[in-house]
Amino acid sequence: MKKQNKLAIIPLGGLGEIGKNMTVIRYGNDIVVLDCGLAFPEDDMLGIDLVIPDITYLLENKDKIRAVVITHGHEDHIGSLSYFLKQINVPVYGTRLSLGIAECRLKENNLENYTLTPIKPGDELSFGSIQVGFIQGNHSIPDSVGIYFRTPVGIIVHTGDFKVDFTPVDGKVIDLHKFAELGSEGVLVLMSDSTNAPRPGVTKSERTVGTALDEAFSGAKGRILLATFASNVLRVQQAINSACKYGRKVAIIGRSMINVMNIARELEYLFVPEGTLIDIDQIKNYPDNQLLILTTGSQGEPMSALTRMAMSDHRKVDICPSDTIIISATPIPGNEKLVSKTIDALLRLGANVIHERSAGIHVSGHASQEELKLMLTLVRPQYLIPVHGEHRMLVTHSKLAQELGLPKENIFVGTNGQVFEFSQDAGGVTGKLAGKVTAGKIFVDGLGVGDVGNIVLRDRQLLSKDGLIIVVVTMDKGSGCVVAGPDLVSRGFVYVREAGELMDEVKQIVILALDKCEANHITEWAAIKSDIRNALGRFIYEKTHRRPIILPIIMEV
Amino acid sequence: MKKQNKLAIIPLGGLGEIGKNMTVIRYGNDIVVLDCGLAFPEDDMLGIDLVIPDITYLLENKDKIRAVVITHGHEDHIGSLSYFLKQINVPVYGTRLSLGIAECRLKENNLENYTLTPIKPGDELSFGSIQVGFIQGNHSIPDSVGIYFRTPVGIIVHTGDFKVDFTPVDGKVIDLHKFAELGSEGVLVLMSDSTNAPRPGVTKSERTVGTALDEAFSGAKGRILLATFASNVLRVQQAINSACKYGRKVAIIGRSMINVMNIARELEYLFVPEGTLIDIDQIKNYPDNQLLILTTGSQGEPMSALTRMAMSDHRKVDICPSDTIIISATPIPGNEKLVSKTIDALLRLGANVIHERSAGIHVSGHASQEELKLMLTLVRPQYLIPVHGEHRMLVTHSKLAQELGLPKENIFVGTNGQVFEFSQDAGGVTGKLAGKVTAGKIFVDGLGVGDVGNIVLRDRQLLSKDGLIIVVVTMDKGSGCVVAGPDLVSRGFVYVREAGELMDEVKQIVILALDKCEANHITEWAAIKSDIRNALGRFIYEKTHRRPIILPIIMEV
Repeated sequence: MKKQNKLAIIPLGGLGEIGKNMTVIRYGNDIVVLDCGLAFPEDDMLGIDLVIPDITYLLENKDKIRAVVITHGHEDHIGSLSYFLKQINVPVYGTRLSLGIAECRLKENNLENYTLTPIKPGDELSFGSIQVGFIQGNHSIPDSVGIYFRTPVGIIVHTGDFKVDFTPVDGKVIDLHKFAELGSEGVLVLMSDSTNAPRPGVTKSERTVGTALDEAFSGAKGRILLATFASNVLRVQQAINSACKYGRKVAIIGRSMINVMNIARELEYLFVPEGTLIDIDQIKNYPDNQLLILTTGSQGEPMSALTRMAMSDHRKVDICPSDTIIISATPIPGNEKLVSKTIDALLRLGANVIHERSAGIHVSGHASQEELKLMLTLVRPQYLIPVHGEHRMLVTHSKLAQELGLPKENIFVGTNGQVFEFSQDAGGVTGKLAGKVTAGKIFVDGLGVGDVGNIVLRDRQLLSKDGLIIVVVTMDKGSGCVVAGPDLVSRGFVYVREAGELMDEVKQIVILALDKCEANHITEWAAIKSDIRNALGRFIYEKTHRRPIILPIIMEV
Repeated sequence: MKKQNKLAIIPLGGLGEIGKNMTVIRYGNDIVVLDCGLAFPEDDMLGIDLVIPDITYLLENKDKIRAVVITHGHEDHIGSLSYFLKQINVPVYGTRLSLGIAECRLKENNLENYTLTPIKPGDELSFGSIQVGFIQGNHSIPDSVGIYFRTPVGIIVHTGDFKVDFTPVDGKVIDLHKFAELGSEGVLVLMSDSTNAPRPGVTKSERTVGTALDEAFSGAKGRILLATFASNVLRVQQAINSACKYGRKVAIIGRSMINVMNIARELEYLFVPEGTLIDIDQIKNYPDNQLLILTTGSQGEPMSALTRMAMSDHRKVDICPSDTIIISATPIPGNEKLVSKTIDALLRLGANVIHERSAGIHVSGHASQEELKLMLTLVRPQYLIPVHGEHRMLVTHSKLAQELGLPKENIFVGTNGQVFEFSQDAGGVTGKLAGKVTAGKIFVDGLGVGDVGNIVLRDRQLLSKDGLIIVVVTMDKGSGCVVAGPDLVSRGFVYVREAGELMDEVKQIVILALDKCEANHITEWAAIKSDIRNALGRFIYEKTHRRPIILPIIMEV
């Protein structure tokens, strides 16, 4: 009897976290990679710009990788493509808008040699023993898809990020029929978006935002500034529609807003009537009540256009009391304070700021509990792997599925790197955990990828807390006598000009420690340094209850 | 005609921010200070432990200060008392529990010489020309009061932090009659809590939490761990009541929980039946379903008991899958991520975690919109100063008052340090802005008060982002020749062991810069240092897109 090949699902990102989504589907010698995202750094990842998945496993199985398939064009699904393709150049498949946005990023990262192949919902492709199909979805970006994988062991359905929008702005309702058909056919594993699993009820249609925007526009006396995610093309479309309705010209600010709008217009996902767009430098030629300014900065990002305006630090736009500012987004967890600060600053300038969820100017792009139940009911999978969420979201999703009758042992609440293995035996297909592969966070800091690790981060944390004190001493090679110094330099500890007395005492402590070393004939540098560090550390903690990094440096002449 | 004295209200903290509440009431030569709080550091205040108000104005008017009056025992209202009393030793008045908690803090800070005088709601005291009265309130700590000030110019009412609880656990309903009486008499200025101004409706009664806790207790099979604010004595009381009802012993973990419970029991605000409390070391002697553990850590604070348990790092308690953990609190803005991490870690250990607002196990201590309207309606002040809130909350509170008919010009949405001045003329009393006094944030870092300022913070921020590189060179005094070095030390930049090549190049750049200085006869240290800094900064940015602090140090022999 021929050895039965096994089907493996290996998430390399997106489990127990929001971001850097990436899933490996492997059957025999064929691997297809679903999504290739990045994550934004946590608070304790000081100085880190981006976090990307560790793809060691894929590098080790490079020859088996047939394709990358993309669910949609958000950074947490396409953002690490340029790092990935530099090392593993395989064709990438996705819808036109997803690839359009991805290509823009690849070019920014100076990638030249890549293959992007557009697909449409409904398409099916073969990658060796794995057939891949694409299903129309709904999300906070157009052209999002769910993806299914037909394998010899069974069908896997991955929802991608999704919600169920019965009245989407572009008319493309999520293809519930296809999910139902697959369910009728028999689905082995459903991987489903858990981001909003804790939220009861249903997520509102994007169209309701259009109504709320319309209302806000009708009441505004002066300029309107609207901040939203650039990639939320249908939100932007609705804002432009309202602008046209109320006779306002539209100016655009912010690099990502300009980029994505250009791509979306070129690919015909965004429609702007002739004569609507004006250059930002032209706004002075129009009365305030004939202007809409679309801007980035809905997350209070310190360098974004809206934040600069709030701080009265933008070259092109000065906020004035007649302005209405609409922040059409909710803060991503961790950004609450930044957004609040921006709102407060705008209010201080006298502007009218519309920002609360209650105003109806934002809806989520993710399915709430009733939609997740609908998906589970249509697909009725044998196994569920909740994906895209922090651990408690996955757990809540698992509980929902159990309420619908899925046995707990058929739900895998997992972590990145776990191998979920499915194999056929006499009684049917069963799934189990089958070990782990390397998975983790690779830090991108400037041009460096992976060169900042935990040791460097720990130093940054210590430095950020209490700063450092550098002690430099020059010693005679022969005699071991101090010939210059000790000199003291500190940064981030105390403001030296106002702490002369303390620094004098610190110097005395060092001199004492050096004298003691000499008296005890301690000449080894390591020992001298350690004595200085100990004596100084103790003294400084007693005096200040702080623990700066102490760096003794000995020069030899 | 005698010159009319003016009444001044000067907030030194709590406007445009949450925390460090402090308000100065001044008439002629009499000053009364209301509250003396601290704030917790913002994300960008690296290494800072606490923030206290700048009391320069009070130090300049020390001789006029008659008293400090305290609304309640939360840190943001009493937390800077020890710093204040060290410089200005005046009597402090407050309810028994507020003073009990305050005294505990004063002792921890080694203060010995202070006068704490307990008052009861209903009491009135005279401080020169100012009469001060105390009104029973409701809040998330017992014994909270509103405070009114009778002055020759008019009455000021300050709500303190408040909510309207018709069914408080201790039976002490907020004294709406007194607020109404003062309203009938005629109130010049109302200063009212704005923390929940954006929240529609009414805040639920603390008693509803008791019902939810009871339900959670009735369903728990193993141990119950409950995390809440130690100062929420009536929450703790309700947890203890439920424990008694279901035959559970109570063990306590966490310094502040133990401290506050001791004070509250001693002062008879908390009632624990004989034989209920056990030592934490005794928990192994009881079956799991006969145990309640009360703990700190509801904010995910890294060093707190609950966080340690979640990280499997607590000496006394190991979390197990049969545990039910109730987090009876909502994250303070900025703490969301910390709390989420703790919950995720607890779930990973298999425990059942009850944490969401929907579970009813937490209610706010602050008035929502309908309660704010009730307060405004009862007190019907001539002027409103919204207090205790970030700017947008004050603005929302102002809008609510305008809806009730208060003219916009009679509402002062202010900032700390502004002087609100009220004076009598023929037409009655009018208020106006009358300049500013010094106000601001004083940083407490370890034992240092005010010795860390913006320069040190900026250094800490730079260090935290990209670390630093130290370049040490020893030069001959006479010839200006390099006799040792250049030596390089870096921290928080790259992990040197893995970046040998880069550090070699860095060294070459320094040597080149030094050679160039020698060739150009540049001997001034400042110039040499600046050349090194420039050459190295340019090179490192090109290579890495990072900007570490570069610290050249020259030693002379």
